[in-house]
Amino acid sequence: MSNTVKIVRFHQTGPAEVLQFDELPLPEPGPGEIRLRVKALGLNRAEVMFRSGQYLETPVHPAKNGYEASGIIEAVGSGVDSSWIGKTASTVPGTFKLNDHGVYGEVAVVPVHGIAEYPLTLSYEQGASIWMQYLTAYGALVWIGHVAKNDFVVITAASSSVGVAAIEIVKAEGAVSIAVTRTAAKKAQLLRLGADHVIVTDEEDLVTRVNEITSGKGARIVFDPIGGKILEALAAATASKGIIFEYGALAPEPTPYPLFTALAKYLTIRAYTLFELTPAPEFSKAKQYIFDHLASGAFKPLIDKTFRFAEIVEAHRYMESNAQVGKIVVTL
Amino acid sequence: MSNTVKIVRFHQTGPAEVLQFDELPLPEPGPGEIRLRVKALGLNRAEVMFRSGQYLETPVHPAKNGYEASGIIEAVGSGVDSSWIGKTASTVPGTFKLNDHGVYGEVAVVPVHGIAEYPLTLSYEQGASIWMQYLTAYGALVWIGHVAKNDFVVITAASSSVGVAAIEIVKAEGAVSIAVTRTAAKKAQLLRLGADHVIVTDEEDLVTRVNEITSGKGARIVFDPIGGKILEALAAATASKGIIFEYGALAPEPTPYPLFTALAKYLTIRAYTLFELTPAPEFSKAKQYIFDHLASGAFKPLIDKTFRFAEIVEAHRYMESNAQVGKIVVTL
Repeated sequence: MSNTVKIVRFHQTGPAEVLQFDELPLPEPGPGEIRLRVKALGLNRAEVMFRSGQYLETPVHPAKNGYEASGIIEAVGSGVDSSWIGKTASTVPGTFKLNDHGVYGEVAVVPVHGIAEYPLTLSYEQGASIWMQYLTAYGALVWIGHVAKNDFVVITAASSSVGVAAIEIVKAEGAVSIAVTRTAAKKAQLLRLGADHVIVTDEEDLVTRVNEITSGKGARIVFDPIGGKILEALAAATASKGIIFEYGALAPEPTPYPLFTALAKYLTIRAYTLFELTPAPEFSKAKQYIFDHLASGAFKPLIDKTFRFAEIVEAHRYMESNAQVGKIVVTL
Repeated sequence: MSNTVKIVRFHQTGPAEVLQFDELPLPEPGPGEIRLRVKALGLNRAEVMFRSGQYLETPVHPAKNGYEASGIIEAVGSGVDSSWIGKTASTVPGTFKLNDHGVYGEVAVVPVHGIAEYPLTLSYEQGASIWMQYLTAYGALVWIGHVAKNDFVVITAASSSVGVAAIEIVKAEGAVSIAVTRTAAKKAQLLRLGADHVIVTDEEDLVTRVNEITSGKGARIVFDPIGGKILEALAAATASKGIIFEYGALAPEPTPYPLFTALAKYLTIRAYTLFELTPAPEFSKAKQYIFDHLASGAFKPLIDKTFRFAEIVEAHRYMESNAQVGKIVVTL
């Protein structure tokens, strides 16, 4: 172990190329923190948006990046139980800011409450592909949405890692998933992954298809990270008294609020992010739920493609290509 | 009692003048219906919108109109307890369609479940000024919003009859009302009516003032019938995890959904109308709550101005002038 480590930072916002490897002194964990020797990084859309200056958090340069790393804990700061050392764990998004603790690097220093163990039957790649996707979907669908047996759930951007996790959670709860994807390219794979129905919006009318599938009732829950003009169609496809979760802002255009449709059906539009769940008492329950479903094999973190650490710029570019189904992982 | 009665109808949508008095045979109540000899009519914005062709329900010409009438029950149809005859009662919006049972007339025929008694200490004018305003505000604030002691509640269009009812309910529940009105004209009266704070949007910045009043926390509940561009400011004035009720569509322009503000604060935007409450089990509880608060004097239906039946066109015009605070009533 050298006295310096490679940490990925960016000194200005911009395209993937702004990510660079800075050789920095090995960081020591402060009070309440641990240091993880990183084995794999799970990439998230939020990190692409952060890098581009389009995220809820504004980069402070030189900015770190990255929410999800798996690896082995190699040091703890004051006030942290030393029995953590040597354990395999991964970092939990929503428990720290990217500017403070971004995990892209050979090591990552994060608060101990931002670390969670996972079943050791999982690979490091899978270990870095858990918390963002399952906690995000759990918070909306289970915690707030109370998804129940036979509920119809529309999942847009279904091939994203969160989308695939939502398909698994819907299945685990006995509900019916309606995965929405733009092109036919990913349809077969979404069905294999357990989607009960797949709607290809380039070829089919979303509202017509949801009405067919739900016998005209509409979906009780919609889980959408896109916003923009799709919200009007999603509202039209939602059941009376249904709930639409908005958990992202992928659409470049403004989002019209579908006032008349909402009034006619008493719709709830609920903005939600993981950051609401992590400080709530429900957080422990959520982690246990996910651990148990991973241990039983009900949830299988899906890796689309892995890149080497040296290829992190390519990994970001690949995410921006939207070719993936599931998680993009960088290994160290 | 002649064999014909005057019923207000319109044969085309348009300005107030389209309302006309049609001399029609005395209608007999059908199965499950009662006939009310009308003593007063309470006017609602919904009826102006219905007349103009801008309401959720589309007029079927010649169209009746009117949700709220008070009077004496003078006949019942088959299956209805005859002990209703002779009782003073008023009609409950949300229990029938305007096309089917619009109450503007010397008599009104409505389903018996669309009739409710009220404390006889109230005048007929007040009796026609109860259900739309208190049920609408109750459903959002108490039933769905669970308004609680010390909650801050922003009430837009505060001088409307529903707005004034919301101020009374907020007070009854020990919460703090922030009434929002466009011009200074109605400020003193809103304060006299019990509003804890009044914001005049032509003179003050809504977000700044709400932040001052709530010490930067924002309002837990917003109760808004306007929509349109005010929603962005309302979202900015809402507390983290707060809820915005949209219960109307008064704004002529489209309503942008404040996606980034909503994501940052986990906001709920809940579309609600009275039609959600009336078929729900909560309806009985709501009626009892309102009856009790009327009987105790905690709620005092506020009449802005009364018109004679022959002046119903003027009464509609007056509503469109937005000069009123409280209810516009037509007496017979």
